[in-house]
Amino acid sequence: MDEPLLLAIAILGGTGKEGKGLAYRWAKAGYRVLIGSRSSEKAVKAASEIMQLLEGSSSVVGTTNPEAARGAEIVVVTVPYSAHRETLESVKDALQGKLLVDVTAPLVPPKVSKVQMPAAGSAAQEAKEILGEGVEVVAAFQNVSHELLLGDEEVECDVLVTGTSKKARAEVLTLVEAAGLTGWDAGPIENSVVVEGLTSVLININKQYGSTYAGIKITGAQSK
Amino acid sequence: MDEPLLLAIAILGGTGKEGKGLAYRWAKAGYRVLIGSRSSEKAVKAASEIMQLLEGSSSVVGTTNPEAARGAEIVVVTVPYSAHRETLESVKDALQGKLLVDVTAPLVPPKVSKVQMPAAGSAAQEAKEILGEGVEVVAAFQNVSHELLLGDEEVECDVLVTGTSKKARAEVLTLVEAAGLTGWDAGPIENSVVVEGLTSVLININKQYGSTYAGIKITGAQSK
Repeated sequence: MDEPLLLAIAILGGTGKEGKGLAYRWAKAGYRVLIGSRSSEKAVKAASEIMQLLEGSSSVVGTTNPEAARGAEIVVVTVPYSAHRETLESVKDALQGKLLVDVTAPLVPPKVSKVQMPAAGSAAQEAKEILGEGVEVVAAFQNVSHELLLGDEEVECDVLVTGTSKKARAEVLTLVEAAGLTGWDAGPIENSVVVEGLTSVLININKQYGSTYAGIKITGAQSK
Repeated sequence: MDEPLLLAIAILGGTGKEGKGLAYRWAKAGYRVLIGSRSSEKAVKAASEIMQLLEGSSSVVGTTNPEAARGAEIVVVTVPYSAHRETLESVKDALQGKLLVDVTAPLVPPKVSKVQMPAAGSAAQEAKEILGEGVEVVAAFQNVSHELLLGDEEVECDVLVTGTSKKARAEVLTLVEAAGLTGWDAGPIENSVVVEGLTSVLININKQYGSTYAGIKITGAQSK
């Protein structure tokens, strides 16, 4: 690619399937991607796997979660809910003044098809409580099957984007588009319960109807 | 129509647009429909308006909310959230042993595009608390624009069905199909927060993107 490199995006827990899929799509779109993990060794390995799928001037590097958060303007967290609080606390200082994109669906095994939100109302609201006033928090990408992201096929699932300000949601809508998906401004951070909880509803549909990649599409509106 | 009349369905608050739309579609499918209202006069008028749109042997009658609830096997509540508790308390005895379909989205004016659930977790869970163990409660139809129901056009919005048992959800999925819509078993009553809250998300999308009838469709799965 000949386009100049764009912003740097850190993906914490980026060695998982969801993180790798987003890393692949954003690196391909020209963003510099920093894969973060508790183990920098694992992060380096994941970065190298993604680079092998990409061509030319793409930039994906692996490091620890705090290093990744320090090096990026936008920080995405894609860890299982059980590691959500610990991961955010480990990068709290590095995140001040930045934008966090929370991909976490707070599933509580074994009943992952039943909505069970944390006391804050949703994982995104919990992130906001942990990180404080200096960090904008946006929730997105919880409903997309991660298997679909690590490749170039069209994903038939829209991305509902909720968050602490309209400006922050607009920034994330740009990232959604860069990843080749259709995004929608779904309102304030209090609406994150719908988007995160929809993951349990889709798991339930997969279970009841024998599907694998149930998703949602918004109808009756034009996203641009 | 020559088919025999099916079950009786009561629609409490059935003089509103959503109630009339559902009454029209179910009466057309052969169900006996009892429109309920606080004012039996208004209910009779609404029933007569719907009968004028229908042909032949359809049966729509108007009466008070408690009379309607007593006369039906399935009771649907389509009142604004401000009248939710009072309406349910007025029919609690008549509902025992029956199935309640709760269409209420607990919108809190003026911020109707922000999810603001009652303490019970959702309107449907609040209904269950009010009505007790003897009543099955199912949430459905909150996301469909009521203007689209009072007519024969295809509605491009799926219906997510949550509720207290799989059997009760299956009964309501039959009613969704009878109304000409596509329904999905969306899981236990705890998942109602997603379905009810999605109404605020869709209102937000209508506001942000200049649409009127934003809805959702499930992708990647087959409903039958």
